[in-house]
Amino acid sequence: MSRVAVIAGQGRLAPAVIAALDDPLVYALDGFAPDVAATPFRLERLVPFLDSLIEAGVERVVFAGAIRRPRLDPEAFDPRTAQLVPRILGAMQSGDDAALREVLKVFEENDLTICGVDEVIPDLIPSEGVLAGTVSDADRRDADRAAAILTGLGPFDIGQGAVVAQGLCLAIETLPGTAAMLEFAAAHAGLRPNPNGARGVFYKAPKPEQDRRVDLPTIGPDTVTQAAAAGLAGIVWQAGGVILLDRDEALRRADAAGLFLWARA
Amino acid sequence: MSRVAVIAGQGRLAPAVIAALDDPLVYALDGFAPDVAATPFRLERLVPFLDSLIEAGVERVVFAGAIRRPRLDPEAFDPRTAQLVPRILGAMQSGDDAALREVLKVFEENDLTICGVDEVIPDLIPSEGVLAGTVSDADRRDADRAAAILTGLGPFDIGQGAVVAQGLCLAIETLPGTAAMLEFAAAHAGLRPNPNGARGVFYKAPKPEQDRRVDLPTIGPDTVTQAAAAGLAGIVWQAGGVILLDRDEALRRADAAGLFLWARA
Repeated sequence: MSRVAVIAGQGRLAPAVIAALDDPLVYALDGFAPDVAATPFRLERLVPFLDSLIEAGVERVVFAGAIRRPRLDPEAFDPRTAQLVPRILGAMQSGDDAALREVLKVFEENDLTICGVDEVIPDLIPSEGVLAGTVSDADRRDADRAAAILTGLGPFDIGQGAVVAQGLCLAIETLPGTAAMLEFAAAHAGLRPNPNGARGVFYKAPKPEQDRRVDLPTIGPDTVTQAAAAGLAGIVWQAGGVILLDRDEALRRADAAGLFLWARA
Repeated sequence: MSRVAVIAGQGRLAPAVIAALDDPLVYALDGFAPDVAATPFRLERLVPFLDSLIEAGVERVVFAGAIRRPRLDPEAFDPRTAQLVPRILGAMQSGDDAALREVLKVFEENDLTICGVDEVIPDLIPSEGVLAGTVSDADRRDADRAAAILTGLGPFDIGQGAVVAQGLCLAIETLPGTAAMLEFAAAHAGLRPNPNGARGVFYKAPKPEQDRRVDLPTIGPDTVTQAAAAGLAGIVWQAGGVILLDRDEALRRADAAGLFLWARA
Protein backbone atom coordinates (compact mmCIF):
# COMPACT_ATOMS: atom_id res chain seq x y z
CA MET A 1 0.00 0.00 0.00
CA SER A 2 1.65 3.24 -1.13
CA ARG A 3 0.20 6.44 0.26
CA VAL A 4 1.05 10.09 -0.18
CA ALA A 5 1.67 12.36 2.81
CA VAL A 6 0.98 16.08 2.51
CA ILE A 7 2.90 18.43 4.78
CA ALA A 8 0.36 21.23 4.89
CA GLY A 9 1.49 24.80 5.42
CA GLN A 10 -0.62 27.87 5.85
CA GLY A 11 -2.49 29.32 2.91
CA ARG A 12 -4.65 28.00 0.13
CA LEU A 13 -2.18 25.67 -1.56
CA ALA A 14 -2.66 22.79 0.90
CA PRO A 15 -6.44 22.44 0.38
CA ALA A 16 -5.94 22.48 -3.41
CA VAL A 17 -3.27 19.78 -3.26
CA ILE A 18 -5.24 17.62 -0.85
CA ALA A 19 -8.33 17.83 -3.06
CA ALA A 20 -6.30 16.63 -6.04
CA LEU A 21 -4.97 13.53 -4.24
CA ASP A 22 -6.63 10.21 -3.45
CA ASP A 23 -6.99 9.97 0.34
CA PRO A 24 -3.67 11.47 1.40
CA LEU A 25 -2.38 11.57 4.97
CA VAL A 26 -2.16 15.20 6.05
CA TYR A 27 0.33 16.58 8.57
CA ALA A 28 1.31 20.05 9.73
CA LEU A 29 4.10 21.49 11.81
CA ASP A 30 2.83 21.96 15.35
CA GLY A 31 1.89 25.58 16.03
CA PHE A 32 1.26 26.41 12.36
CA ALA A 33 -2.29 25.14 11.93
CA PRO A 34 -3.21 25.11 8.24
CA ASP A 35 -6.70 25.65 6.84
CA VAL A 36 -7.22 21.89 6.59
CA ALA A 37 -7.53 19.05 9.10
CA ALA A 38 -3.99 17.85 9.79
CA THR A 39 -2.10 15.75 12.31
CA PRO A 40 0.52 17.93 14.02
CA PHE A 41 4.18 16.96 14.24
CA ARG A 42 7.15 18.65 15.86
CA LEU A 43 10.48 19.30 14.19
CA GLU A 44 12.10 18.33 17.50
CA ARG A 45 10.70 14.79 16.94
CA LEU A 46 11.37 14.60 13.21
CA VAL A 47 12.92 11.11 13.18
CA PRO A 48 10.04 9.38 15.05
CA PHE A 49 7.63 11.27 12.75
CA LEU A 50 9.37 9.89 9.66
CA ASP A 51 9.24 6.40 11.19
CA SER A 52 5.48 6.80 11.60
CA LEU A 53 5.14 7.78 7.92
CA ILE A 54 7.00 4.66 6.80
CA GLU A 55 4.86 2.52 9.13
CA ALA A 56 1.73 4.05 7.58
CA GLY A 57 2.91 2.95 4.13
CA VAL A 58 3.90 6.42 2.90
CA GLU A 59 6.42 6.54 0.05
CA ARG A 60 5.93 10.04 -1.35
CA VAL A 61 5.67 13.37 0.47
CA VAL A 62 4.30 16.64 -0.93
CA PHE A 63 5.06 19.95 0.78
CA ALA A 64 2.13 22.29 0.23
CA GLY A 65 2.06 25.83 1.51
CA ALA A 66 4.02 28.29 3.56
CA ILE A 67 5.87 26.94 6.59
CA ARG A 68 7.56 29.42 8.87
CA ARG A 69 10.63 28.29 10.73
CA PRO A 70 9.46 27.03 14.13
CA ARG A 71 10.86 28.08 17.46
CA LEU A 72 12.57 24.99 18.85
CA ASP A 73 12.09 23.71 22.40
CA PRO A 74 15.39 22.16 23.51
CA GLU A 75 13.57 19.83 25.94
CA ALA A 76 11.26 18.40 23.26
CA PHE A 77 13.92 16.60 21.21
CA ASP A 78 13.99 12.82 21.11
CA PRO A 79 17.50 11.32 21.18
CA ARG A 80 17.71 10.50 17.47
CA THR A 81 16.43 13.88 16.27
CA ALA A 82 18.76 15.55 18.78
CA GLN A 83 21.68 14.15 16.82
CA LEU A 84 20.49 16.13 13.80
CA VAL A 85 20.40 19.42 15.69
CA PRO A 86 23.87 20.69 14.80
CA ARG A 87 23.15 20.00 11.13
CA ILE A 88 19.75 21.71 11.05
CA LEU A 89 20.68 24.65 13.28
CA GLY A 90 23.78 25.21 11.18
CA ALA A 91 21.66 25.27 8.04
CA MET A 92 19.15 27.66 9.63
CA GLN A 93 21.95 30.21 10.06
CA SER A 94 22.27 30.29 6.27
CA GLY A 95 18.61 31.06 5.66
CA ASP A 96 15.32 29.41 4.82
CA ASP A 97 16.51 27.57 1.72
CA ALA A 98 19.44 25.88 3.38
CA ALA A 99 17.36 24.88 6.41
CA LEU A 100 14.64 23.39 4.24
CA ARG A 101 17.15 21.59 2.01
CA GLU A 102 18.65 19.98 5.09
CA VAL A 103 15.24 18.84 6.35
CA LEU A 104 14.44 17.39 2.91
CA LYS A 105 17.69 15.44 2.99
CA VAL A 106 16.59 13.86 6.26
CA PHE A 107 13.29 12.78 4.64
CA GLU A 108 15.20 11.23 1.75
CA GLU A 109 17.68 9.48 4.03
CA ASN A 110 14.61 7.86 5.57
CA ASP A 111 13.43 6.44 2.20
CA LEU A 112 10.75 9.05 1.49
CA THR A 113 10.51 10.70 -1.95
CA ILE A 114 9.70 14.42 -2.16
CA CYS A 115 7.20 15.30 -4.93
CA GLY A 116 6.66 18.79 -6.31
CA VAL A 117 3.11 20.15 -6.32
CA ASP A 118 3.32 20.39 -10.12
CA GLU A 119 3.44 16.56 -10.21
CA VAL A 120 0.09 16.58 -8.41
CA ILE A 121 -1.59 19.57 -10.12
CA PRO A 122 0.34 20.47 -13.28
CA ASP A 123 -1.66 23.61 -14.19
CA LEU A 124 -0.87 25.32 -10.87
CA ILE A 125 2.29 26.74 -12.43
CA PRO A 126 1.47 28.96 -15.42
CA SER A 127 3.75 28.92 -18.41
CA GLU A 128 4.78 32.05 -20.32
CA GLY A 129 2.13 34.57 -21.29
CA VAL A 130 0.05 37.57 -20.26
CA LEU A 131 -2.93 36.15 -18.36
CA ALA A 132 -4.75 39.42 -17.68
CA GLY A 133 -4.56 43.07 -18.75
CA THR A 134 -1.87 44.65 -20.89
CA VAL A 135 1.80 45.22 -20.21
CA SER A 136 3.32 48.55 -21.29
CA ASP A 137 6.93 49.13 -22.33
CA ALA A 138 7.55 50.95 -19.05
CA ASP A 139 6.16 47.95 -17.17
CA ARG A 140 8.54 45.70 -19.11
CA ARG A 141 11.49 47.88 -18.13
CA ASP A 142 10.40 47.83 -14.49
CA ALA A 143 10.06 44.05 -14.68
CA ASP A 144 13.55 43.75 -16.22
CA ARG A 145 15.01 45.78 -13.39
CA ALA A 146 13.17 43.87 -10.67
CA ALA A 147 14.30 40.57 -12.17
CA ALA A 148 17.91 41.78 -12.23
CA ILE A 149 17.69 42.83 -8.57
CA LEU A 150 16.34 39.45 -7.49
CA THR A 151 19.03 37.67 -9.49
CA GLY A 152 21.64 39.78 -7.70
CA LEU A 153 20.11 38.88 -4.33
CA GLY A 154 19.93 35.19 -5.21
CA PRO A 155 23.13 34.12 -3.46
CA PHE A 156 21.89 35.67 -0.20
CA ASP A 157 18.76 33.53 0.20
CA ILE A 158 16.59 36.50 1.15
CA GLY A 159 13.30 37.11 -0.56
CA GLN A 160 11.46 36.24 -3.68
CA GLY A 161 9.93 39.55 -4.59
CA ALA A 162 10.57 43.20 -5.34
CA VAL A 163 8.53 46.26 -6.28
CA VAL A 164 9.98 48.54 -8.97
CA ALA A 165 8.30 51.67 -10.36
CA GLN A 166 9.76 54.05 -12.93
CA GLY A 167 13.09 52.24 -12.64
CA LEU A 168 13.26 52.75 -8.86
CA CYS A 169 13.12 50.00 -6.28
CA LEU A 170 10.37 50.73 -3.75
CA ALA A 171 10.60 47.48 -1.78
CA ILE A 172 12.43 44.18 -1.53
CA GLU A 173 10.85 41.14 0.05
CA THR A 174 12.59 39.96 3.23
CA LEU A 175 11.67 37.61 6.08
CA PRO A 176 8.27 39.27 6.78
CA GLY A 177 7.04 38.14 3.35
CA THR A 178 5.03 39.36 0.39
CA ALA A 179 2.01 40.90 2.13
CA ALA A 180 4.25 42.95 4.45
CA MET A 181 6.32 44.13 1.47
CA LEU A 182 3.27 45.17 -0.56
CA GLU A 183 1.87 46.98 2.48
CA PHE A 184 5.21 48.84 2.73
CA ALA A 185 5.06 49.68 -0.99
CA ALA A 186 1.49 50.93 -0.55
CA ALA A 187 2.52 53.19 2.34
CA HIS A 188 5.29 54.74 0.23
CA ALA A 189 3.64 54.76 -3.21
CA GLY A 190 3.77 58.58 -3.24
CA LEU A 191 7.54 58.48 -3.76
CA ARG A 192 7.24 57.66 -7.45
CA PRO A 193 8.89 60.66 -9.15
CA ASN A 194 6.26 61.12 -11.83
CA PRO A 195 2.75 60.80 -10.36
CA ASN A 196 1.35 60.27 -13.85
CA GLY A 197 4.11 57.87 -14.90
CA ALA A 198 4.38 54.09 -14.72
CA ARG A 199 2.73 52.74 -11.59
CA GLY A 200 5.23 49.94 -11.12
CA VAL A 201 5.26 46.19 -10.93
CA PHE A 202 5.50 43.50 -8.30
CA TYR A 203 7.95 40.85 -9.53
CA LYS A 204 8.14 37.38 -8.04
CA ALA A 205 10.62 34.59 -8.76
CA PRO A 206 12.05 31.55 -7.03
CA LYS A 207 15.49 31.98 -5.58
CA PRO A 208 18.18 30.52 -7.88
CA GLU A 209 19.28 27.93 -5.31
CA GLN A 210 15.76 27.03 -4.25
CA ASP A 211 14.63 23.38 -4.27
CA ARG A 212 11.77 23.55 -6.75
CA ARG A 213 10.06 20.45 -5.36
CA VAL A 214 9.02 22.46 -2.31
CA ASP A 215 8.49 26.06 -1.36
CA LEU A 216 7.99 27.54 -4.82
CA PRO A 217 6.77 31.10 -4.38
CA THR A 218 3.00 31.41 -4.52
CA ILE A 219 0.70 34.17 -5.65
CA GLY A 220 -3.07 34.21 -5.66
CA PRO A 221 -6.18 36.37 -5.41
CA ASP A 222 -4.99 38.05 -2.18
CA THR A 223 -1.72 39.01 -3.86
CA VAL A 224 -3.74 40.70 -6.60
CA THR A 225 -5.74 42.65 -4.04
CA GLN A 226 -2.57 43.69 -2.18
CA ALA A 227 -0.82 44.75 -5.39
CA ALA A 228 -3.87 46.80 -6.37
CA ALA A 229 -3.86 48.47 -2.94
CA ALA A 230 -0.21 49.42 -3.55
CA GLY A 231 -1.29 51.20 -6.74
CA LEU A 232 0.77 48.92 -8.98
CA ALA A 233 0.19 48.31 -12.67
CA GLY A 234 0.53 44.57 -12.40
CA ILE A 235 2.16 41.41 -11.16
CA VAL A 236 4.88 39.68 -13.14
CA TRP A 237 6.63 36.45 -12.28
CA GLN A 238 9.14 33.98 -13.61
CA ALA A 239 7.15 31.65 -15.86
CA GLY A 240 7.36 28.06 -14.65
CA GLY A 241 8.72 29.10 -11.26
CA VAL A 242 5.70 30.46 -9.40
CA ILE A 243 2.46 28.83 -8.26
CA LEU A 244 -0.72 30.74 -9.15
CA LEU A 245 -3.44 29.69 -6.74
CA ASP A 246 -7.13 29.95 -7.55
CA ARG A 247 -6.43 31.20 -11.06
CA ASP A 248 -10.03 32.09 -11.95
CA GLU A 249 -10.51 34.29 -8.91
CA ALA A 250 -7.07 35.88 -9.36
CA LEU A 251 -7.90 36.74 -12.99
CA ARG A 252 -11.31 38.09 -11.97
CA ARG A 253 -9.78 40.40 -9.37
CA ALA A 254 -7.00 41.50 -11.76
CA ASP A 255 -9.55 42.40 -14.43
CA ALA A 256 -11.72 44.22 -11.88
CA ALA A 257 -8.75 46.24 -10.57
CA GLY A 258 -7.19 46.86 -14.00
CA LEU A 259 -4.00 44.96 -13.14
CA PHE A 260 -2.02 42.82 -15.53
CA LEU A 261 -0.84 39.32 -14.63
CA TRP A 262 2.20 38.26 -16.63
CA ALA A 263 4.21 35.04 -16.53
CA ARG A 264 7.51 36.34 -17.93
CA ALA A 265 9.95 34.04 -19.70
CA MET B 1 36.92 86.60 -4.21
CA SER B 2 36.39 82.84 -3.88
CA ARG B 3 33.29 81.75 -2.07
CA VAL B 4 31.83 78.39 -1.18
CA ALA B 5 28.24 77.49 -2.08
CA VAL B 6 26.37 74.96 0.01
CA ILE B 7 23.56 72.98 -1.62
CA ALA B 8 21.52 72.32 1.49
CA GLY B 9 19.37 69.24 1.72
CA GLN B 10 16.99 68.21 4.44
CA GLY B 11 18.28 67.03 7.80
CA ARG B 12 20.94 68.14 10.22
CA LEU B 13 24.01 67.94 8.01
CA ALA B 14 23.45 71.28 6.27
CA PRO B 15 23.39 73.40 9.46
CA ALA B 16 26.60 71.68 10.66
CA VAL B 17 28.39 72.31 7.37
CA ILE B 18 27.22 75.91 7.14
CA ALA B 19 28.39 76.60 10.70
CA ALA B 20 31.85 75.29 9.82
CA LEU B 21 32.26 77.57 6.79
CA ASP B 22 33.09 81.28 6.55
CA ASP B 23 30.05 83.08 5.12
CA PRO B 24 28.94 80.50 2.54
CA LEU B 25 26.17 81.07 0.01
CA VAL B 26 23.36 78.64 0.76
CA TYR B 27 20.97 77.20 -1.83
CA ALA B 28 18.34 74.50 -1.80
CA LEU B 29 16.34 72.67 -4.43
CA ASP B 30 12.94 74.33 -4.72
CA GLY B 31 10.29 72.39 -2.85
CA PHE B 32 12.74 70.72 -0.46
CA ALA B 33 13.13 73.44 2.17
CA PRO B 34 16.04 72.57 4.46
CA ASP B 35 16.29 73.54 8.15
CA VAL B 36 18.42 76.56 7.23
CA ALA B 37 17.85 79.79 5.35
CA ALA B 38 18.52 79.02 1.70
CA THR B 39 17.93 80.52 -1.74
CA PRO B 40 15.81 78.11 -3.79
CA PHE B 41 16.80 76.93 -7.25
CA ARG B 42 15.07 74.66 -9.73
CA LEU B 43 16.68 71.73 -11.52
CA GLU B 44 14.77 72.82 -14.62
CA ARG B 45 16.88 76.00 -14.59
CA LEU B 46 20.20 74.40 -13.63
CA VAL B 47 22.37 76.18 -16.21
CA PRO B 48 21.24 79.74 -15.30
CA PHE B 49 21.69 78.77 -11.63
CA LEU B 50 25.29 77.70 -12.27
CA ASP B 51 25.89 80.97 -14.13
CA SER B 52 24.67 82.85 -11.07
CA LEU B 53 27.10 80.92 -8.85
CA ILE B 54 30.04 81.85 -11.09
CA GLU B 55 28.92 85.49 -11.14
CA ALA B 56 28.81 85.46 -7.34
CA GLY B 57 32.45 84.33 -7.26
CA VAL B 58 31.76 80.74 -6.25
CA GLU B 59 34.51 78.21 -7.04
CA ARG B 60 33.67 75.35 -4.71
CA VAL B 61 30.34 73.66 -3.99
CA VAL B 62 29.48 71.43 -1.03
CA PHE B 63 26.42 69.17 -1.12
CA ALA B 64 25.10 68.83 2.43
CA GLY B 65 22.14 66.67 3.28
CA ALA B 66 19.49 64.51 1.74
CA ILE B 67 18.05 65.66 -1.57
CA ARG B 68 15.14 63.73 -2.99
CA ARG B 69 14.72 63.61 -6.73
CA PRO B 70 12.41 66.48 -7.68
CA ARG B 71 9.34 66.20 -9.84
CA LEU B 72 10.15 68.07 -13.02
CA ASP B 73 7.85 70.61 -14.63
CA PRO B 74 8.34 70.39 -18.42
CA GLU B 75 7.30 74.04 -18.84
CA ALA B 76 9.85 75.38 -16.36
CA PHE B 77 12.99 74.50 -18.36
CA ASP B 78 15.13 77.26 -19.82
CA PRO B 79 16.51 76.49 -23.29
CA ARG B 80 20.04 75.62 -22.19
CA THR B 81 18.97 73.34 -19.36
CA ALA B 82 16.40 71.78 -21.69
CA GLN B 83 19.30 70.51 -23.80
CA LEU B 84 20.51 68.52 -20.77
CA VAL B 85 17.15 66.80 -20.28
CA PRO B 86 17.84 63.62 -22.26
CA ARG B 87 21.10 63.18 -20.35
CA ILE B 88 19.62 63.71 -16.88
CA LEU B 89 16.37 61.83 -17.49
CA GLY B 90 18.34 58.93 -18.91
CA ALA B 91 20.52 58.87 -15.81
CA MET B 92 17.45 59.04 -13.52
CA GLN B 93 16.22 55.79 -15.02
CA SER B 94 19.36 54.13 -13.65
CA GLY B 95 18.81 55.30 -10.09
CA ASP B 96 19.79 58.02 -7.66
CA ASP B 97 23.55 57.59 -8.00
CA ALA B 98 23.61 57.87 -11.75
CA ALA B 99 21.30 60.90 -11.73
CA LEU B 100 23.41 62.68 -9.15
CA ARG B 101 26.66 61.84 -10.95
CA GLU B 102 25.25 63.38 -14.10
CA VAL B 103 24.23 66.56 -12.28
CA LEU B 104 27.70 66.79 -10.69
CA LYS B 105 29.28 66.52 -14.14
CA VAL B 106 27.23 69.53 -15.22
CA PHE B 107 28.56 71.51 -12.25
CA GLU B 108 32.13 70.57 -13.18
CA GLU B 109 31.64 71.39 -16.84
CA ASN B 110 30.68 74.86 -15.60
CA ASP B 111 34.01 75.28 -13.74
CA LEU B 112 32.72 74.50 -10.25
CA THR B 113 34.61 72.13 -7.96
CA ILE B 114 32.63 69.68 -5.80
CA CYS B 115 34.00 69.37 -2.21
CA GLY B 116 33.18 66.52 0.15
CA VAL B 117 31.82 67.41 3.59
CA ASP B 118 34.87 65.70 5.11
CA GLU B 119 37.01 68.47 3.61
CA VAL B 120 34.93 70.94 5.61
CA ILE B 121 34.45 68.97 8.86
CA PRO B 122 36.90 66.05 8.95
CA ASP B 123 35.63 64.42 12.16
CA LEU B 124 32.10 63.96 10.76
CA ILE B 125 33.19 60.60 9.34
CA PRO B 126 34.32 58.24 12.12
CA SER B 127 37.24 55.92 11.47
CA GLU B 128 37.29 52.29 12.61
CA GLY B 129 36.29 51.43 16.16
CA VAL B 130 33.47 50.69 18.59
CA LEU B 131 32.14 54.07 19.70
CA ALA B 132 29.54 52.86 22.19
CA GLY B 133 28.50 49.60 23.86
CA THR B 134 29.88 46.15 23.14
CA VAL B 135 29.63 43.99 20.02
CA SER B 136 28.99 40.25 20.50
CA ASP B 137 30.17 37.49 18.19
CA ALA B 138 26.58 37.02 16.99
CA ASP B 139 26.40 40.74 16.20
CA ARG B 140 29.62 40.42 14.20
CA ARG B 141 28.15 37.56 12.20
CA ASP B 142 24.97 39.55 11.55
CA ALA B 143 27.11 42.52 10.46
CA ASP B 144 29.13 40.29 8.10
CA ARG B 145 25.95 39.05 6.50
CA ALA B 146 24.41 42.51 6.15
CA ALA B 147 27.63 43.81 4.59
CA ALA B 148 27.64 40.93 2.10
CA ILE B 149 24.01 41.63 1.14
CA LEU B 150 24.70 45.33 0.51
CA THR B 151 27.77 44.45 -1.54
CA GLY B 152 25.60 42.14 -3.63
CA LEU B 153 23.04 44.92 -4.12
CA GLY B 154 25.73 47.46 -5.00
CA PRO B 155 25.40 47.19 -8.79
CA PHE B 156 21.66 47.95 -8.54
CA ASP B 157 21.94 51.39 -6.92
CA ILE B 158 19.20 50.67 -4.40
CA GLY B 159 19.72 51.33 -0.74
CA GLN B 160 22.46 51.80 1.74
CA GLY B 161 21.16 49.78 4.64
CA ALA B 162 19.94 46.40 5.82
CA VAL B 163 18.72 44.84 9.05
CA VAL B 164 19.96 41.32 9.86
CA ALA B 165 19.14 39.35 13.01
CA GLN B 166 20.23 35.78 13.78
CA GLY B 167 21.53 35.49 10.24
CA LEU B 168 18.17 36.43 8.72
CA CYS B 169 17.48 39.55 6.69
CA LEU B 170 14.53 41.44 8.19
CA ALA B 171 14.69 44.50 5.93
CA ILE B 172 16.57 46.10 3.06
CA GLU B 173 16.62 49.84 2.55
CA THR B 174 14.92 51.00 -0.65
CA LEU B 175 13.65 54.34 -1.97
CA PRO B 176 11.62 55.19 1.18
CA GLY B 177 14.84 55.39 3.19
CA THR B 178 16.30 54.44 6.55
CA ALA B 179 13.53 55.56 8.89
CA ALA B 180 10.89 53.69 6.86
CA MET B 181 13.06 50.56 6.84
CA LEU B 182 13.66 50.64 10.60
CA GLU B 183 9.95 51.17 11.18
CA PHE B 184 9.30 48.08 9.02
CA ALA B 185 11.91 46.11 11.00
CA ALA B 186 10.27 47.26 14.26
CA ALA B 187 6.84 46.10 13.05
CA HIS B 188 8.22 42.64 12.24
CA ALA B 189 10.77 42.21 15.05
CA GLY B 190 8.77 39.27 16.41
CA LEU B 191 9.90 37.11 13.48
CA ARG B 192 13.35 36.49 14.97
CA PRO B 193 13.40 32.71 15.45
CA ASN B 194 14.92 32.76 18.91
CA PRO B 195 13.28 35.46 21.07
CA ASN B 196 16.20 35.31 23.49
CA GLY B 197 18.85 35.23 20.74
CA ALA B 198 20.78 37.99 18.99
CA ARG B 199 18.63 41.08 18.53
CA GLY B 200 20.18 42.02 15.22
CA VAL B 201 22.03 44.90 13.67
CA PHE B 202 21.34 47.79 11.35
CA TYR B 203 24.20 48.00 8.85
CA LYS B 204 24.87 51.07 6.73
CA ALA B 205 27.38 51.57 3.94
CA PRO B 206 27.84 53.75 0.89
CA LYS B 207 27.02 52.12 -2.40
CA PRO B 208 30.14 50.88 -4.21
CA GLU B 209 29.60 53.21 -7.18
CA GLN B 210 28.61 56.20 -5.08
CA ASP B 211 30.41 59.52 -5.54
CA ARG B 212 31.84 60.00 -2.05
CA ARG B 213 32.06 63.76 -2.41
CA VAL B 214 28.29 63.97 -2.09
CA ASP B 215 25.50 61.94 -0.67
CA LEU B 216 27.46 59.77 1.76
CA PRO B 217 24.96 57.93 3.94
CA THR B 218 24.28 59.68 7.22
CA ILE B 219 23.33 58.41 10.64
CA GLY B 220 22.67 60.41 13.77
CA PRO B 221 20.76 60.54 17.05
CA ASP B 222 17.40 59.86 15.37
CA THR B 223 18.84 56.74 13.73
CA VAL B 224 19.86 55.52 17.19
CA THR B 225 16.34 56.08 18.51
CA GLN B 226 14.79 54.30 15.50
CA ALA B 227 17.19 51.33 15.81
CA ALA B 228 16.37 51.07 19.52
CA ALA B 229 12.64 51.10 18.71
CA ALA B 230 13.27 48.18 16.33
CA GLY B 231 14.77 46.23 19.23
CA LEU B 232 18.19 45.99 17.59
CA ALA B 233 21.48 45.35 19.39
CA GLY B 234 23.32 48.11 17.58
CA ILE B 235 24.27 50.08 14.50
CA VAL B 236 27.30 49.19 12.44
CA TRP B 237 28.61 50.99 9.39
CA GLN B 238 31.46 51.01 6.94
CA ALA B 239 34.24 52.99 8.64
CA GLY B 240 35.20 56.03 6.60
CA GLY B 241 32.08 55.80 4.45
CA VAL B 242 29.27 57.10 6.67
CA ILE B 243 28.64 60.50 8.25
CA LEU B 244 27.82 60.44 11.98
CA LEU B 245 25.93 63.62 12.79
CA ASP B 246 25.83 65.10 16.29
CA ARG B 247 28.16 62.45 17.65
CA ASP B 248 27.83 63.38 21.34
CA GLU B 249 24.04 63.12 21.31
CA ALA B 250 24.15 59.90 19.26
CA LEU B 251 26.55 58.33 21.78
CA ARG B 252 24.42 59.54 24.69
CA ARG B 253 21.28 57.94 23.21
CA ALA B 254 23.13 54.73 22.35
CA ASP B 255 24.43 54.41 25.91
CA ALA B 256 20.97 55.18 27.33
CA ALA B 257 19.31 52.56 25.10
CA GLY B 258 22.07 49.95 25.48
CA LEU B 259 22.93 49.98 21.77
CA PHE B 260 26.39 49.63 20.31
CA LEU B 261 27.73 51.96 17.63
CA TRP B 262 30.48 50.37 15.55
CA ALA B 263 32.46 51.78 12.64
CA ARG B 264 33.48 48.48 11.00
CA ALA B 265 36.62 48.23 8.87
